[in-house]
Formats: sequence, C-alpha cells, structure tokens
Amino acid sequence: MDATGFEIHPQLAQTSYPLVSLPYSDLRLVDDARFPWVLVIPRISNAVELIDLPPEIRTPVGVEIDHVCRILRDVFAPYKLNVAALGNQVRQLHVHVIARYVDDPAWPNPVWGMGQSMPYDEDGLASRLRLLSAALQ
Amino acid sequence: MDATGFEIHPQLAQTSYPLVSLPYSDLRLVDDARFPWVLVIPRISNAVELIDLPPEIRTPVGVEIDHVCRILRDVFAPYKLNVAALGNQVRQLHVHVIARYVDDPAWPNPVWGMGQSMPYDEDGLASRLRLLSAALQ
Repeated sequence: MDATGFEIHPQLAQTSYPLVSLPYSDLRLVDDARFPWVLVIPRISNAVELIDLPPEIRTPVGVEIDHVCRILRDVFAPYKLNVAALGNQVRQLHVHVIARYVDDPAWPNPVWGMGQSMPYDEDGLASRLRLLSAALQ
Repeated sequence: MDATGFEIHPQLAQTSYPLVSLPYSDLRLVDDARFPWVLVIPRISNAVELIDLPPEIRTPVGVEIDHVCRILRDVFAPYKLNVAALGNQVRQLHVHVIARYVDDPAWPNPVWGMGQSMPYDEDGLASRLRLLSAALQ
C-alpha cells in the first residue's frame, strides 16, 4: 500500500513483476514470456474506467500509456501494438500494452485466454526486467 | 473517400454502420447485436497506431474516445467498458469501445473471436442507430 492507500490488486500482483513507477502509474511486466506485455496501472484507489479518472490525472495517464507504447515499439519492433483497457477479470483499472508479431502464438487473435501462459525463466526474467526498466525510466 | 483521401477500410465498412462523424473520427456501430459496440476511426490515412497520430490530432482523438466511452456508459449502464486498439486483423487505426455485462455471451472473455456475431434485424438496427446517433452527436 502506498501513502494514498493505493494497493495493486493481488491477481495483478501475482501474475506480473514491477518495472518502473511513473508519476501517475506503476508499470509491471506480465509473467508470460510468449509476449512482451506491460501493464499500466494508475495509482488511484477504486478507479475502474479511464473515464473515472479526474481530468488532471486522465491526461497524464494517457501520456504515460503512450510512452509505454513508444518504448515497446522502439525496443521490440513489433508488427502491431495491442493496447486495451478491459478489466473483465480484475476490475482495478489497468491498461495492457502488448507487442505483437505475425508469428507469435496467438496471432492474429488477441492474447487473452489464448493457450497457457509461459512464465519467464530466471535469466529471461532478469534480462527482460533490466532491459525494460532502463528503457521505460 | 473524403477530401483528404481518407477511406474506411472495406472490412470495417462491411461489418459496421455509420453513426456520427466527430471532428477527428468517424463513429460506427459494429453489426453484432450481442454487444453495444462502437468503432472510433480517426480520419487519418495510413494511421496504424494511436502513437502514429501527430500530437495535435492524438489529443482530440483521445477526447473523442473518452466521449464515446461516456455515452456508452450513460446509454447502456454496462458493468464494464472494454476499450481497445488492436488492429491485428485490420491494420487501419480503429478503437473498439464495447459495453459489457456479466450476462453477455462472451463474459468474462473479450468479445473478439467469441462465437458467431449476430447481425441486427431491421428494426433493431434502426432503433439502435437512432438512439446512438442522437446521443453521440
């Protein structure tokens, strides 16, 4: 829990690793080595929809989402980005940014619910966290 | 084609109906009566990612997406909005805004690729277009 009482939902915390805290959002790496996949989680308690955010927070959160998109594009050179705020499984506001390739295991479908996730191995995780933390900072 | 040479991708045109033209985006109703589902299509030729848009267009397009979210929430009172820029099937930039319910046919999964779409019947389409066009204007 941070000073404002905000806490990452346990289901998000259990399936992802912390990357970087931006001024308004925590960025986390989803533990699925099949896809470069980052969550943007605004640190606002009880936020569910992006349009729930107060305007002075909605705007910079949008800038932070775009920042993550640019970094994922620069680092991974995907064929396509997938950017989505769904929240059907975990209601706490979080935005998926995923780098997609025509030869990835879910293409051309969305990634959610496609096959089994593939947790990172220790080395893969360490190098991915290092790479992305530096780039997203 | 409009005066700038912009044209809706045929696959998007064939599976949706025109609702409203906002200053930067065309709004279209997806022809699937299972879900209240609107596409936001910025009228920018060759745009693929939201971050491709020039900053002076990115910002108002974001405002238009949020506007659609608010109207869908006001009109349909969904349990959750799903907002996504995917583009794996059709590369032309388009953003999905979908009103979701815990008893809809895809819940809690995303809607894409779930079962068969259910085209509107004539009366259902006319009334949905009338309702949404007035609200989104």
